[in-house]
Order: sequence, then structure tokens, then C-alpha cells
Amino acid sequence: FILVNVSIAQEQNGETLATWNNSAAKSAIVNFVDRVTQRDSPDYVPPEQRIAVFDNDGTLWAEKPAYFQLLFAKDEVTRLAPEHPEWKTEQPFAAILNEDMVSLLAQGKGGIEKMIGATHANMTREEFNRVVTSWLNTARNPLTGKHYRDMIYQPMGELLNYLRAKGFKTFIVSGGGTDFIRVFSESLYGIPPEQVIGSRLKARYENDDGHPRVIATDEVEFVNDKEGKPIGISQAIGRRPIFAVGNSDGDLQMLEWTTAGKGPRFGMLIHHTDAKREWAYDRKSRVGHLDKALKAAKYHNWTVVDMAKDWSVVFPPAKRTTSKRGAQN
Amino acid sequence: FILVNVSIAQEQNGETLATWNNSAAKSAIVNFVDRVTQRDSPDYVPPEQRIAVFDNDGTLWAEKPAYFQLLFAKDEVTRLAPEHPEWKTEQPFAAILNEDMVSLLAQGKGGIEKMIGATHANMTREEFNRVVTSWLNTARNPLTGKHYRDMIYQPMGELLNYLRAKGFKTFIVSGGGTDFIRVFSESLYGIPPEQVIGSRLKARYENDDGHPRVIATDEVEFVNDKEGKPIGISQAIGRRPIFAVGNSDGDLQMLEWTTAGKGPRFGMLIHHTDAKREWAYDRKSRVGHLDKALKAAKYHNWTVVDMAKDWSVVFPPAKRTTSKRGAQN
Ligand SMILES: [Ca+2]
Ligand SMILES: [Ca+2]
Repeated sequence: FILVNVSIAQEQNGETLATWNNSAAKSAIVNFVDRVTQRDSPDYVPPEQRIAVFDNDGTLWAEKPAYFQLLFAKDEVTRLAPEHPEWKTEQPFAAILNEDMVSLLAQGKGGIEKMIGATHANMTREEFNRVVTSWLNTARNPLTGKHYRDMIYQPMGELLNYLRAKGFKTFIVSGGGTDFIRVFSESLYGIPPEQVIGSRLKARYENDDGHPRVIATDEVEFVNDKEGKPIGISQAIGRRPIFAVGNSDGDLQMLEWTTAGKGPRFGMLIHHTDAKREWAYDRKSRVGHLDKALKAAKYHNWTVVDMAKDWSVVFPPAKRTTSKRGAQN
Repeated sequence: FILVNVSIAQEQNGETLATWNNSAAKSAIVNFVDRVTQRDSPDYVPPEQRIAVFDNDGTLWAEKPAYFQLLFAKDEVTRLAPEHPEWKTEQPFAAILNEDMVSLLAQGKGGIEKMIGATHANMTREEFNRVVTSWLNTARNPLTGKHYRDMIYQPMGELLNYLRAKGFKTFIVSGGGTDFIRVFSESLYGIPPEQVIGSRLKARYENDDGHPRVIATDEVEFVNDKEGKPIGISQAIGRRPIFAVGNSDGDLQMLEWTTAGKGPRFGMLIHHTDAKREWAYDRKSRVGHLDKALKAAKYHNWTVVDMAKDWSVVFPPAKRTTSKRGAQN
């Protein structure tokens, strides 16, 4: 909510990308957008082809100490534990309840699937929406003490607004769960649910009792990561984007494919360089691992955002939530 | 092209749904739209929730003597036959080349999959687009002699424009192939590719030679028909529509699920009753089979469009393509 209000106010004042410092990254963005939107430009791109895709974790919001969806699943296991006494001894639940990260990681893919099954599946989307909304309104990040919704990146919110004001259609393309992100994509980023492309569970249709409903099963149907990103975009949008932003090796193929298209294309990586205001990490990090894509950025001439140098603000100012402007809108 | 021009001109004149006769179907549409869009209505629905879904074959364009995509595949087999001498004896190709419908139908699902593999797969979307565009510009329907793009329903084009003018977001939800429909959805219906949900082939990503591309394989990944329609909508849009239109039993679950949602909902069936201007068919037809859904319409109070009585025009007037207005826009 904050983000949108702040940015709208800024655009009314004639400012754009207000929390981007006047460095090369900002110039690269503005130059590209001018190039494809100015009517007399030889590189003009008609509005319907101005597709911009954004990774979510580590690109639009933070991802430490772990992907927020994983922290949600962990919180859910704790919340649901009283109804499941068997979890005290059953993995991966026992490890989660005991905060035993070593045992949890030892469960591997099977453990994560069980956790998703227990916290994301056998629900309609409406039911899942309520659960995630309640979590967003209460849960806090263990490292910052902030609500997760306050850990979105202010400059990226401005970039989304700026692109939309220039006729771009903005999409989220995430390795995270589509249904999870859809709960907050509109309120946090101004991106409607139908413009969220993520990993997904297989769904089934039920109507045995005259109450038709679509239910998420516990079977993973599609993993929207690495090669999955261009495939997911192609299946969901049917057009190659002209603008793509990510922050890890999981975005490498999305950026490669986007920027290899004919005509003007823009690729960008968010490099987490800011140990003071956020965290500094890249190729040694398990979460948000960035190595190959950073090398590819040089080769392909993608813009690399240095968070410490290119952004004057990282998270939205906390006070805004209770300011008059926030309350009125 | 035609459709959009005609309808825009009409709206400028203050007319809407101009080729819908003043019968119950038109009133039902207009009353529902007023109910959900007028600010002071107790049933007001905010714009972002105004999702309208349309079946394609038999709902937005005709489907005789067979689904047009099947006729496209047949035409493609004929076009490609010189490169495939083995097809002279290999099924289902031999049956297609000999126009032997009995043998072709005997091939069943396996035959159709082989035909799809030979005509739709192992291509990038850009390559497939070129093939379909060329077919649309040249091929003609064997029963009418018309170009397929001239066999869209004028009243449905007006309905799409009317809903969009009222803040609805319109989607195609078809059992046909997503990639096929995306080629013409924007030019014929004003619906962008990312708002087309259909059946799809599995895709793979390739970049072994520095030319990143997404390729359609010959493996069917999802069939967007019957239960597949609510599942497909749920996965792609993440919201339950408030307005759904179909014409066959393949749309039953989509209409059931749409109209079972809370608040105001609208379900509509196009009943092909016009043997003079189009074709009259329902429960005895293999293509566009309509039986259960027609019974359900009574039970659920869905609007049933009687093409012969409710539409003053079926197909767009042929001359418009070369009119001044058509040329200017
Ligand atoms: Ca990421
Ligand atoms: Ca149909």
C-alpha cells in the first residue's frame, strides 16, 4: 500500500525513480525506456509489446534469512502443530518444530515437498488467500523484526510504476509459488494476480456436492526456475519480454532469452552489495546464489545494480504506514 | 480487424451491442453489466474483479465442418506432404491426404497426437506464428468458401468491446491450442496473447548454440477442456471470473464454477439454432456437442442465446474489409 502511494505522489511532482541515485544504472533504464517509447525513435516498440518481467525474491523484496515463502511454511507448521501431534516425531516437521536447521536441510527435496503438502495443499485458493493474508498481517522477519510487506524494495516499486506509466505491462516471474505471490502482488507491487507466473501445484476440480471448487493438490506441476522461467513466460504470455530483471543464477536463462530477442532489449541484475542497509551476498550464498549470471552480465552488457551505490533508500520508510497520506488512500 | 473497427464506430455513435436484437438475452447482459458497474449498485464489483471468460470455437467463431485448428492441421499435412513421402502409407497422414475421414477417425487420440506433432511441434512460437498467419491469409473454409477470420461472430465481437468499455478484462478459455489462438486473438478479438488460456504442448528451452529459444515439443501438457477449464483459469488468472460464455458441454464446468461464486455472476450459452445463416446443432453434433450444459442452463438460470432470434447479423459484413474506415484504422 505504502509503495504505491509514495510513488504516485512522486509522479505527480514530476519526479520519477526518486530513490535511484544519478548513476549509470538509472541512466541505462531511462535511456532504454526513452528509446522504445518515443514515437520518433528508430527503436520504438508499440505498447502491447512492452512486456517487462521481474523476479520476486531478492529482486522486489528481500530473501534473508531464507525465501519468505519458506519462512511462511515454517510458521504454518508451528501454527498447525497442535492439530498434528504426530509431527513431534515425523520429519521434516520435527526438525522445523525444534528449529533444527541441520536436520531440516538433511530432508532435502522430499522434506520440502512434505512441508508444502502440509501448508499449501488441499485448499481452495480463497482458503489459502486467507491464511497468507493473516500471516502477512502478523508475522515478522526474524532478522529485521519488520513485517514482510515492509521488506519490499522502494526503488523497485518506483521502477514498476515508472514502466507502467510508460505503457509497459509488468509481470512477476518467480521460482516461488504463484498462489503465494498472488495474495500480495496487487497490494504490494500493483501487479494483478493474472500477471504472476511462478511455480505451481497441480490442481483438481471437485463438484460432488454441488459446490464447484478448484483445489491445489500436493503434487508439484511446474518449477518456474532456471530454464523454467523462459518456458513459464512463453506458456503464460506467449511473447518474449523486452525488459527482464533478476538477482540470481535462477534468472540467467530468463535474461539470456529476453535479451537475445530482435530489437531493443534490456537485462538487469540486482546485486546485493549493501551489508549496512540490507545484506551483501552473491556467489557464496545459498539463497540468491549469483555467480554465472554476474559473469554473463558483463558478456551480454546487462545493467548491474549496485544496491549500496545506486539506491538512496532500500526499504520504504516505516512511518509512512501511519501517515495521513497512507491513511487517506 | 474489421470487427474492432465496426464496434469502435458504433460506440462512438452511442450504440452498444448493435447487432443484438432487443430480446431477453441482450437485456440480461445489459442488466447484469449495469448491476456490477454502477457505483451505487449494491452488487457493484470493482474493475479488477471484472474477469470475463469466453470459449472460442462455436462461441467467438464458427466450428463447422470441424474445429478450425483441425482443418489447419489437415491443410498443413497437405502442404508439407512433398517433404514427407513416407506419409503416403503412414497413418494418420495417409488418411488425411486421401481425405478418408473414416480411416482418420479410426486413428483416435493417437492419430490426432501424431498430426499435432507433425504440424505444431518442434518450432519456436515465432516460427509457428508465421505458419498460422500465412494459413489465415490464404485458407478458406470448405463449407462457406470464406476466410476463417471472416467467420467470427459479429455480435460476440461487440459483446467483447462492450464489456471492455465497462472495465472488464476479457480472456479466451478454449480447448484449442493456446499458441494457435494467440496468433489471431489480438487482431480478431482485441484480446492480447497473455489473455488466452488453452490446451498446450510441453515446451523446452534450448541454448546450445548461443541462440536461446523456447521450442514446443509434441507432448501434450494440458488439455483445457471440461474440468480443465476451471483448472486452467485458476492456474492462469488466480481469480474466479464473474462472466463466462460457452457453447458446448466442454464449457459446463467453467460455467458451473463461475456462477457458483459469491456475489453477482453471469453464465451464458450460445445455442446454434440458425440453419439458414450458420448451422443448427446441439446434442446430436460431435463438434460443439451441447446437451448436459443446456439442461444445466435451465437449472442455474444461465442465459441461452438463440442465434436465429437474438442476433440480427452472424458474420461481419464482408465488404467492410475494403471500406475506407477499414483501410484507415
Ligand atoms: Ca531471486
Ligand atoms: Ca466451443
